[in-house]
Amino acid sequence: MSLYAQRGVSAQKEEVHAAIQNLDQGLYPNAFCKLYADFLGKQSDHINIMHADGAGTKSILAYIYWKETGDASVWKGIAQDAIAMNLDDLLCVGIYDQILFSSTIDRNKLVITGEVLSEVINGTQDFFNTLKSFGVNIEFLGGETADVGDVVRTIAVNGTMTARWPKSKLITNDLIAPGQVIVGFSSHGKATYENEYNSGLGSNGLTSARHDVLSKEYAQKYPETFEPTLPEQVVYLGKNKVLDKLAIPGFGEVPVGKLLLSPTRTYAPLVKAILTQHFDAVKGMIHCSGGGQTKCMKYLPGNMRIVKDQFMETPPIFKLIQENSGANAREMYQVFNMGHRLEIFTEASSAEAFIQIAKGFNIDAQIIGKVEVCDKKELVLQGSFGTEIFNY
Amino acid sequence: MSLYAQRGVSAQKEEVHAAIQNLDQGLYPNAFCKLYADFLGKQSDHINIMHADGAGTKSILAYIYWKETGDASVWKGIAQDAIAMNLDDLLCVGIYDQILFSSTIDRNKLVITGEVLSEVINGTQDFFNTLKSFGVNIEFLGGETADVGDVVRTIAVNGTMTARWPKSKLITNDLIAPGQVIVGFSSHGKATYENEYNSGLGSNGLTSARHDVLSKEYAQKYPETFEPTLPEQVVYLGKNKVLDKLAIPGFGEVPVGKLLLSPTRTYAPLVKAILTQHFDAVKGMIHCSGGGQTKCMKYLPGNMRIVKDQFMETPPIFKLIQENSGANAREMYQVFNMGHRLEIFTEASSAEAFIQIAKGFNIDAQIIGKVEVCDKKELVLQGSFGTEIFNY
Repeated sequence: MSLYAQRGVSAQKEEVHAAIQNLDQGLYPNAFCKLYADFLGKQSDHINIMHADGAGTKSILAYIYWKETGDASVWKGIAQDAIAMNLDDLLCVGIYDQILFSSTIDRNKLVITGEVLSEVINGTQDFFNTLKSFGVNIEFLGGETADVGDVVRTIAVNGTMTARWPKSKLITNDLIAPGQVIVGFSSHGKATYENEYNSGLGSNGLTSARHDVLSKEYAQKYPETFEPTLPEQVVYLGKNKVLDKLAIPGFGEVPVGKLLLSPTRTYAPLVKAILTQHFDAVKGMIHCSGGGQTKCMKYLPGNMRIVKDQFMETPPIFKLIQENSGANAREMYQVFNMGHRLEIFTEASSAEAFIQIAKGFNIDAQIIGKVEVCDKKELVLQGSFGTEIFNY
Repeated sequence: MSLYAQRGVSAQKEEVHAAIQNLDQGLYPNAFCKLYADFLGKQSDHINIMHADGAGTKSILAYIYWKETGDASVWKGIAQDAIAMNLDDLLCVGIYDQILFSSTIDRNKLVITGEVLSEVINGTQDFFNTLKSFGVNIEFLGGETADVGDVVRTIAVNGTMTARWPKSKLITNDLIAPGQVIVGFSSHGKATYENEYNSGLGSNGLTSARHDVLSKEYAQKYPETFEPTLPEQVVYLGKNKVLDKLAIPGFGEVPVGKLLLSPTRTYAPLVKAILTQHFDAVKGMIHCSGGGQTKCMKYLPGNMRIVKDQFMETPPIFKLIQENSGANAREMYQVFNMGHRLEIFTEASSAEAFIQIAKGFNIDAQIIGKVEVCDKKELVLQGSFGTEIFNY
């Protein structure tokens, strides 16, 4: 059994997909999010969406870092994670504005203080204020914070977004077709709207990353940070402590804990610029979240081959994780974004315009692959690691 | 320190209120839920709401009952809890239709099976189907289910609702005034839209109820159901096992576990009938959730005395909890609804009409109190237990 399975996580979420198979799957089967009729406005040319996601087990990293350093400000990053994991999903159907947000926080009051709640909740509003200055308007309509220490070991931070949007401005992925190229947008670096280096990790694969990178010392010190029946050999296997430093070219030495905790970058200002200037050129959009570089395969409108053979350089955080875990390339690319967390499918002639817009936000971008004719759904990942083929 | 505080719960949520004090408090300060401008439809005569709540620690009871009996259907009740705790809050601002719902489920995959997920998720849709047949339309727009066993010991089931609603049909509590009466609607019995006896417990005070009623045996058997650092003397102190029977007049013997797990009754069909027939007569509405019979005091539009001196008979489940815990009346009324989970403030002349509508749904109702002139906010609870006075 894989480390992933032994730890009780599943990158492909088979049981979840089985549980939801009888639910309404929405109006656009290939769209990145489920989209429904305009129940709220009753206009046939609009859709409604509600979307939920959270910071997942990344909150545990914030907990350890906070306990080790006393620095409660890292909790603001967890607020950003819960927002960006929702927002960047919405971007992929074309929605970048006029969004409502509500949070759901479950905490163990015996270990999570009121100060932490303040950081998460006020960090939420702070991040919305930043986004507003880039023309992305999200309204914070409150939420629920519950003290449920018998259910939650530390804290679970989730968020839900609601939007109405015109059908004429949706990205449904139905236009993805052979002959197109894929532009990837870097998940790491420092965008014009970020205050410090972003490691690019996002909020997926964090259970693996935490146990694989951090030292066994934390198992003894913080037993509240993992399921107690886990076999010892899958718990905190790594070489690092959160204050160990890693050299990041151009950004000096950064603590490993900060790299793991780096708040999920949102691409919202960038995507707003691309969609307002080049809507018709965007044929499909994928947030490489759970499932990493294989995520796109769930949203193709038919048989085709996706070839990704021009990856950007792998950011240091993923190298660190791979060094610690010994995972092979196939495993790494199925769990982590490995360098770009957003993909846009487009005609080759439009790619350069997107890349230039990204440059304006100080986000690296390049053509990372292409779509080819094929009689089945096939994914080819090609790089210095060799060639990995996935069939669907 | 109270048992409540030792267990890491707070009926009054002081830390949460401190954390949210800088957020936008909405358009109507006394309304039961926060209401905001119509960002989604941009009409000045409408409002938007997003609202979040969940089953809280009631999921632990479902877990124990399921482990003891193998009966996974109890998880459908947890779905209903997460819905009704949201829906009945919305009712109190006058919203009973055209609602969107999204769920957020965090589970420990090592202890919660795919079958449980199916019961919760399909139970959600089943409950919406039932409500639809009573003219209450809620659209299930999906949600997120995450495997986060390092954060969650068993399972956390939360939900979020969104609605748009005309301002002219809102209940804002601004019209509550001295001279009015309070009609209480029974939380227990079997409404026309329920399939079995409802104990009336709802989804508040469940941490107390579970530890106070259930036997120490469960501490050994299911260590995954409580925070491990809790002092032994606050964990599972009760006399009962989940399959012990309690005699319910008119309904035979019912297992204690089923009474504790009784899905939160929604008053939606009843409130829809009252609001469509007598909107102008409804001056205020309170869901007696966290805070129990003191909840109303947070929503008064000025100084006045609330006198509740005609309580309905206390349902058996609350007597069982009190017998086990030895809590006094003051404590019980601050945590539990004790018999009615919904209150409507109205003129005396309208009360009988409301009571008759409730009778049509087989829900007991009566005038349980009144509003008096007072130079401060004061609450008087009076019954066979004596008189309890609360000042604010």
